[in-house]
Amino acid sequence: MDVDAARRAAGEAAVPLVEDGMRVGLGTGSTARWFILGLAERVRQGLTIRAVATSLASASLATEGGILVEELGADGLDIAVDGADSVDPALRLIKGRGGAMLREKIVAASAARYVVIVDAGKYMPSLCGRVPVEVIPFGSARTLRTLAERTSMAFAFRTGPDGRPFITDNGNLVADSEDRALHDPSALAEMIRSVPGVAGDGLFVGMTDLVLIGHGDGSVEQLTAPGDTVASGG
Amino acid sequence: MDVDAARRAAGEAAVPLVEDGMRVGLGTGSTARWFILGLAERVRQGLTIRAVATSLASASLATEGGILVEELGADGLDIAVDGADSVDPALRLIKGRGGAMLREKIVAASAARYVVIVDAGKYMPSLCGRVPVEVIPFGSARTLRTLAERTSMAFAFRTGPDGRPFITDNGNLVADSEDRALHDPSALAEMIRSVPGVAGDGLFVGMTDLVLIGHGDGSVEQLTAPGDTVASGG
Repeated sequence: MDVDAARRAAGEAAVPLVEDGMRVGLGTGSTARWFILGLAERVRQGLTIRAVATSLASASLATEGGILVEELGADGLDIAVDGADSVDPALRLIKGRGGAMLREKIVAASAARYVVIVDAGKYMPSLCGRVPVEVIPFGSARTLRTLAERTSMAFAFRTGPDGRPFITDNGNLVADSEDRALHDPSALAEMIRSVPGVAGDGLFVGMTDLVLIGHGDGSVEQLTAPGDTVASGG
Repeated sequence: MDVDAARRAAGEAAVPLVEDGMRVGLGTGSTARWFILGLAERVRQGLTIRAVATSLASASLATEGGILVEELGADGLDIAVDGADSVDPALRLIKGRGGAMLREKIVAASAARYVVIVDAGKYMPSLCGRVPVEVIPFGSARTLRTLAERTSMAFAFRTGPDGRPFITDNGNLVADSEDRALHDPSALAEMIRSVPGVAGDGLFVGMTDLVLIGHGDGSVEQLTAPGDTVASGG
């Protein structure tokens, strides 16, 4: 599969969903980048929107493209568009490979419509991968132990390229679970959130309204309800 | 009631629960202060313990008293002793008037035995008061709105004496609910924790092993199971 073409197809397919006057959440990553570039093109053609970014990189890209970026307000957003690391037929997600899952989840939850854009390689019959958990630094060694005990999964703190602890934009650590198929993501999310010291996690359950799956040939599938895929033009 | 005498009675009643070699969690506040002072006295008499403090104030008080204070390790604690703002017969707590409820909960959850020390004025037939919630700064205006919607309670951000936002040791904001009797603390805790952007809260449910209730005459009641109080000497 031509992964770049697939990501571009998915990202660009989300652009027409944005209407004039909307408040729009901008995701982060290589697929969200295509969405932001397409949106900037529409803004140059006269579309008026206000945006909230989930990362500094996306904020910069949007601002350079002429998109007005502001803070997330109490009223929330009309639509938010973001990528994911893994998507299943129930529209459940694993996110957080970039470490921004908490801000991404706050933005997603604030949006009336949450649209996920992925290449076909991210779509799986059941969620699979490492689950990232954002952990308060105080007592983090103990929190890691408790996470492992409650979930029966191994967790390890993420480090950066320099070998030092990875720190999120919120000043916290990230613990990644072992790489595994998740048979009950909802129950796992409950277990993770029950641990004091956990500030957020990369399991997005019951949040997604629409998944756009891009293929290498430029075609895009829409996934709107469990098991319900509709082929559409790229 | 002589509140100081009641707090002293409760705090000092917890001191004999600490045994040689234990790792001990030290709470924060005017009642926990009596526990720390009593513990320091035993350390001067030869008791060997290692302690973890929930605040800088308690760490200083302990260190001055000769107690070894260290970071919370993966193995957790043998016992933790702390005060509370409100306690009910099911040993459920509201904590967080001082804003340290997240660190306090991490310490409490790490302890094999969690002992709560309060004056009799804090003990109520059902939990009552403002519930403090620790909120990530990003998107906090939206998080406040979502908290209110999901719990059907009003929330407001806490400010310091200078009128600026109160910031926790973890770098987050604190939202306090309206002052109200809580009819179902467990359900409320679930609702609060379901909101993305919430890093912690002051509802302690299913965590407490023993409550020591001090009275103005120096007597102390022990509360160990729902509705089961045992009078004991001060």
